Amino acid sequence: MSTQSDQPSSGPSDLAETNRLEAFSDGVFAIAITLLVLELHAPKLEEGQRLWPALLDEWPQFAAYLASFAILGIMWVNHHSMFRQIRRADRGLMFLNLLLLLWVTLLPFPTSLFAEHLEDDNGHVAGAVYSTNLTLAAIAFSLIWWYVLRHHLVDHTMSKAEIRRSLVRYSVGTVIYAATIGISFVSAQLTLIVVFLLALYYGFEQVRTRGGTA
Amino acid sequence: MSTQSDQPSSGPSDLAETNRLEAFSDGVFAIAITLLVLELHAPKLEEGQRLWPALLDEWPQFAAYLASFAILGIMWVNHHSMFRQIRRADRGLMFLNLLLLLWVTLLPFPTSLFAEHLEDDNGHVAGAVYSTNLTLAAIAFSLIWWYVLRHHLVDHTMSKAEIRRSLVRYSVGTVIYAATIGISFVSAQLTLIVVFLLALYYGFEQVRTRGGTA
Amino acid sequence: MSTQSDQPSSGPSDLAETNRLEAFSDGVFAIAITLLVLELHAPKLEEGQRLWPALLDEWPQFAAYLASFAILGIMWVNHHSMFRQIRRADRGLMFLNLLLLLWVTLLPFPTSLFAEHLEDDNGHVAGAVYSTNLTLAAIAFSLIWWYVLRHHLVDHTMSKAEIRRSLVRYSVGTVIYAATIGISFVSAQLTLIVVFLLALYYGFEQVRTRGGTA
Amino acid sequence: MSTQSDQPSSGPSDLAETNRLEAFSDGVFAIAITLLVLELHAPKLEEGQRLWPALLDEWPQFAAYLASFAILGIMWVNHHSMFRQIRRADRGLMFLNLLLLLWVTLLPFPTSLFAEHLEDDNGHVAGAVYSTNLTLAAIAFSLIWWYVLRHHLVDHTMSKAEIRRSLVRYSVGTVIYAATIGISFVSAQLTLIVVFLLALYYGFEQVRTRGGTA
Repeated sequence: MSTQSDQPSSGPSDLAETNRLEAFSDGVFAIAITLLVLELHAPKLEEGQRLWPALLDEWPQFAAYLASFAILGIMWVNHHSMFRQIRRADRGLMFLNLLLLLWVTLLPFPTSLFAEHLEDDNGHVAGAVYSTNLTLAAIAFSLIWWYVLRHHLVDHTMSKAEIRRSLVRYSVGTVIYAATIGISFVSAQLTLIVVFLLALYYGFEQVRTRGGTA
Repeated sequence: MSTQSDQPSSGPSDLAETNRLEAFSDGVFAIAITLLVLELHAPKLEEGQRLWPALLDEWPQFAAYLASFAILGIMWVNHHSMFRQIRRADRGLMFLNLLLLLWVTLLPFPTSLFAEHLEDDNGHVAGAVYSTNLTLAAIAFSLIWWYVLRHHLVDHTMSKAEIRRSLVRYSVGTVIYAATIGISFVSAQLTLIVVFLLALYYGFEQVRTRGGTA
Repeated sequence: MSTQSDQPSSGPSDLAETNRLEAFSDGVFAIAITLLVLELHAPKLEEGQRLWPALLDEWPQFAAYLASFAILGIMWVNHHSMFRQIRRADRGLMFLNLLLLLWVTLLPFPTSLFAEHLEDDNGHVAGAVYSTNLTLAAIAFSLIWWYVLRHHLVDHTMSKAEIRRSLVRYSVGTVIYAATIGISFVSAQLTLIVVFLLALYYGFEQVRTRGGTA
Repeated sequence: MSTQSDQPSSGPSDLAETNRLEAFSDGVFAIAITLLVLELHAPKLEEGQRLWPALLDEWPQFAAYLASFAILGIMWVNHHSMFRQIRRADRGLMFLNLLLLLWVTLLPFPTSLFAEHLEDDNGHVAGAVYSTNLTLAAIAFSLIWWYVLRHHLVDHTMSKAEIRRSLVRYSVGTVIYAATIGISFVSAQLTLIVVFLLALYYGFEQVRTRGGTA
């Protein structure tokens, strides 16, 4: 802390550091969202079988692809919005950010698991694994935000009421994602729908409250 | 909108935001265009079989690879040109951009589907799926452009005539790509040729009209 | 050297060059850390088999995933910290950096090898291959640091004592990683635990000594 | 050309454009170099078979990996050096750069082909395909350099002698890579060695002539 606190807080070296952290995170988000396509497999057709119904039969993998794409997309937008408010990055923030990226990079695995078992008896477990991954990502988001507030890494322009509201918002998100773990034991397919709607809600809700700007 | 409109429109925070949106998009384009190679499979040779004719037999996968590479390449150049004219990014633009990236990241799947079925009875369906993916990407491009014009996110230097012409250009592109869906029911191989020529045309046409500069 | 030493050391072209080297490295780290997920395979279930115990049976692949993620994450943070102190990049530095990236990009292969053999007789060899990869990366890190010190590519603010301490630190890291090659012949599973703890230690240790800032 | 020539040549919009072109290229290089690892396959061991000799038996895939990594690494360094001298990017340059990236992204395919057939009768064809890919990349490099010189996109500081020498250098490189196509019909393994040595030579030669700076 000693070296850095001597410098003005908006010095070029601090900004540069946040930039590289964001660039690395952008890279990981961009790769994870693009790797999802590798979990899509062309149907293996038998002699004379037609492609179109075989593709429709594979709807679980397209549904899971769409849900994970939407979730990673929204997470990237939120990561972006969050880091716009962060002025400096220290090592602690870097490690919490790595924790978030762990769940981001892992998501293609439960996505593929979920797609494979969405229609069989193991759908509940696959759904619970998928929802747990999302919950762990939501917890990491909350930890990052709590950390940057505690270590005064955010812009000074936030009021105490804004800070409290922002912490509540992240906690609520975490609780909602945790609830989808329970939903997966009711119905795997319902989990997928709820998770997709949550992603859309988070997207549109922030568009509305913040008047269209990030 | 309120916070941002207080700032001068070319303020550093606005530019930074567009930069990160572009960086994320560049990452997704770069990854999608590079992942195409994973859909190329070395021919499985039997004892004594020669490699060269086996590779030539696999021409559909190389043709599909080349077409998708050209399309993603041109789309990146056009994305680049479009965003050079965009001054600010808001959340709505981010979501429309994510919609475009959805079709960009998906493309390796129909490419592989198309390559596999180009010479069999399912080629028509595979070609239609491929063309539909391209059409949805063209629609997303049009939506982005319509959105940035409507929300005054572009540079002020565009005249009304330029705006109208630019909207027509994007609509025409969408209609042409939609037409390739129909062509795929005539001939899958013709679809691939038309799509490849369209990509080349879009590349060269803009080189010509704009005098060699982007 | 002649051209560059005529320019002021903080000139824009020098900074740009380091930036692009860092951007390329960030890309490689981000991709390598995200590709790890492709080595995770969903368990192939037989009729009536349950998913949850099958997933738990696959613990070696999750343990290896977690260890490699932690190692690549810490390596990225350290690469970041190191390059913050580097003012200029020359071709020699670029090639040594490529040598480091060689071991970074290779890591998914021994990770998958290690995961596959963690519980069988070949675990010792797989562990030794894995540890050797990490040791070679540690050597590359040391070479980079030794090179930038020798060619005066670092900031002038480092004292001789700081330089000596930093060289010792890198050498110690290399020796410790080399020791894990030996440990792998005692127990493959112990190797994985030691390597994971080492990654955590390197993370937290630097957080502590440097007071929370990178 | 008209709009841009009104602006001072070092204006921010021009620099930004080159930056995004470089960032996209960096992304593609970084991904292609990292995807090479996906072509490495763990040996499938039979009951009681030992891992170490099985890995040694797979030397062709490691040799091909190393050669392709070295080649892509050197190509990135050279791309970097080339673009440091380029002041502006126009659409023509973008398309020639895409042509280069086509061969860059394709390389993992002939690498895997080469690794598979290095020791069998089809090694000559696999080597020729591999060398052809490299030659096409060298041609694309030459085209880019010829184009930027012809369209005055480089820094003004180059003398005519320097320009002539640089064009000769690129042509010689192309001819040498073309010669390796012929070598592959003599011996596939010799091709791999020559190609690897060429990559090292290009790296070190430029380090020497330019005194250690890029």
